[in-house]
Amino acid sequence: MNNFTFYSPTLFSFGDGEENNTGALVRRFGGTRVLLVTGGGSVRRNGAYDAVTASLEAAGIPFAELSGVQANPRSGKVYEGIDIVRRTGADFLLAVGGGSVIDTAKAIGFGALYKGDFWDFFTGAAKIEKTLPVGVVLTISAAGSEGSDSCVITQERGNLKWGCPKTDVIRPKFAVLDPRFTCSLPAYQTASGAVDMMAHILERYFTNTPDVALTDRLCEALLKTVLDAAPKAIADPNDYAARADLMWAGMLAHNNSCGVGRDQDWASHQIEHELSAFYDCAHGAGLAVVLPAWMEYVLPHDPARLAQFAVRVFGCEMNFADPAETARQGIGRLRSFFRSLGMPTTLEELGAKAEDIPAMAAHRAEKPNGFPFGGFVKIQPADMEAILHLAEGGKQA
Amino acid sequence: MNNFTFYSPTLFSFGDGEENNTGALVRRFGGTRVLLVTGGGSVRRNGAYDAVTASLEAAGIPFAELSGVQANPRSGKVYEGIDIVRRTGADFLLAVGGGSVIDTAKAIGFGALYKGDFWDFFTGAAKIEKTLPVGVVLTISAAGSEGSDSCVITQERGNLKWGCPKTDVIRPKFAVLDPRFTCSLPAYQTASGAVDMMAHILERYFTNTPDVALTDRLCEALLKTVLDAAPKAIADPNDYAARADLMWAGMLAHNNSCGVGRDQDWASHQIEHELSAFYDCAHGAGLAVVLPAWMEYVLPHDPARLAQFAVRVFGCEMNFADPAETARQGIGRLRSFFRSLGMPTTLEELGAKAEDIPAMAAHRAEKPNGFPFGGFVKIQPADMEAILHLAEGGKQA
Repeated sequence: MNNFTFYSPTLFSFGDGEENNTGALVRRFGGTRVLLVTGGGSVRRNGAYDAVTASLEAAGIPFAELSGVQANPRSGKVYEGIDIVRRTGADFLLAVGGGSVIDTAKAIGFGALYKGDFWDFFTGAAKIEKTLPVGVVLTISAAGSEGSDSCVITQERGNLKWGCPKTDVIRPKFAVLDPRFTCSLPAYQTASGAVDMMAHILERYFTNTPDVALTDRLCEALLKTVLDAAPKAIADPNDYAARADLMWAGMLAHNNSCGVGRDQDWASHQIEHELSAFYDCAHGAGLAVVLPAWMEYVLPHDPARLAQFAVRVFGCEMNFADPAETARQGIGRLRSFFRSLGMPTTLEELGAKAEDIPAMAAHRAEKPNGFPFGGFVKIQPADMEAILHLAEGGKQA
Repeated sequence: MNNFTFYSPTLFSFGDGEENNTGALVRRFGGTRVLLVTGGGSVRRNGAYDAVTASLEAAGIPFAELSGVQANPRSGKVYEGIDIVRRTGADFLLAVGGGSVIDTAKAIGFGALYKGDFWDFFTGAAKIEKTLPVGVVLTISAAGSEGSDSCVITQERGNLKWGCPKTDVIRPKFAVLDPRFTCSLPAYQTASGAVDMMAHILERYFTNTPDVALTDRLCEALLKTVLDAAPKAIADPNDYAARADLMWAGMLAHNNSCGVGRDQDWASHQIEHELSAFYDCAHGAGLAVVLPAWMEYVLPHDPARLAQFAVRVFGCEMNFADPAETARQGIGRLRSFFRSLGMPTTLEELGAKAEDIPAMAAHRAEKPNGFPFGGFVKIQPADMEAILHLAEGGKQA
């Protein structure tokens, strides 16, 4: 086990109706005047907007509004929000929605206290040292931003999708998680969220750090929970217990509870970013294609660890004479599970083309620190291309 | 799943040598003048005291000292600490040791900011609303106080061992956990700590709340980790990986990570308190005697849940025709495990006498809210007596 720091100071208020305490939570964490940040219309349709604004009004907290934040949030909304904060004197940011809304609120929070361009914090020209406090009412599972120390914004000048440097300063003060709000998510989005959670766990699970028995077990506990809950939530969108398991698992999958003390991988996420960039696919759908292919590719590096995954998560029988065979069974079971959720598992199903593979690797190579990447196995351009070829339909067992 | 709030704002700094950052952590959380609280000589022998004081000196932080805090910490040391804080102007309490030292520091923290008697907070005559910040360098696993919202002090006037009302205000700002300090613990204390951790998990595991799949899995993950690590730490006291697993599991077992959203039991703890009061036994040793007996007694209430424990934690084969038989196997395995650690599992081995059982139940009955207790099964005096009789040596399978 490596040395580590674990810091998750966010207060989580979880369950049906908890959004009715939003006003009291804003007060508890010092807010007296709020900028409410929202996305499209879903928070108005699912009741979150009405409940939150009623709670703010009941607590006597005035609020201004910034709405229309989109997926893959863009810098324009951040500049707009900073302007509203300065005009209204808001001292608290309240994000109601999913990851994009939260990330926008975080960026407004540190941008509003800075005289220069907020993008300076992303380029490294300035360092985040203070922020307005941020609270969250989460309406989509899996993003993980509700408890995290990071945010990702796309700068419209140059179309740069960048994360700010990770800092504890920007962790939300509180996050309200009401699983009921996720009942209206379409099946594809529910499935994509489940895959993303599993990927967040598996990127931590595949490690070369020895003596990580405890976090292995925690990862496996979360993975088994998602295996159980995701099909239930898709079969019956109003299954509260399944929605609750997914929502809390999504938080635990990304607040590093199950990743402390171990080197992590994150290669599949890096490869998926290229699929998203080329085909604008859902992040979870891209991961459903990449992750099993990546596992096949890295199998020879540590068959025992992949076999452990197969046995403990999917209940495969261990082949003691040939652990790699057990590992392959586990990968097959993972791919079947993704398919059962309605996710693509091949490039073709994603709408991607094998002939673009070299261009995707070349695009990655142009990024700062483009290659190698990955903590479990170092991925070079040829490896990335080979992994994507393993994701071609004809290549799969 | 019940609605819940989860709040664990303590920063955990974990691993070999992390105590060398103590001074920087005190500064990060606003301390400029420290009262250092310690117990007996062990922190001087294991190097914790020297490392912490060197770190404070390197950070230019002056400190006063309160030493000699004993197990089952007493009010005298709290009064003494409050006096030192007032005389020296300390603005930060640093506890170096185990649960008793941390609890003493917590009580000094809120007592020092109050004009009246600090015991008023325990009796309910006053409400804890503010405290001096507390930091921790933990040298013994299992207490859980390093991340908790409670503290237990014995008032020397009247020999009352009471917990203060739980409040987020007193959670430590940071806790340094260096597993190396636990390598010098005697085997009996290591075993007692392991049992205590398992009890902290099992008191949460046995619940009547439906739809708790995720927290069940987390509980099982922690239990399996302790099953694996405790015998290793006893066989080789310097097994760093085993010590690290136990130390982090002890924190997770008691910060409610695995207890959110479910009613909890805590009957075994209540019964054990009487054993401790009558025989001054180690808390973990008393729990090793009570817990399996309690499980036998409550088995008919929910054989399926006890069978789940047997199958998932101990790997017992499920007897689908007779889940109670599987459950009994699991209880037997738990008792065998405790014995393998050198723990007592009968009243006789603990030095307790069956003829004292009615007196223990009567002593409990004298307490405010004495009966019934327990969230899984309501325990009345006759139940408590029956459970203790099941812990007699001759009664066990």
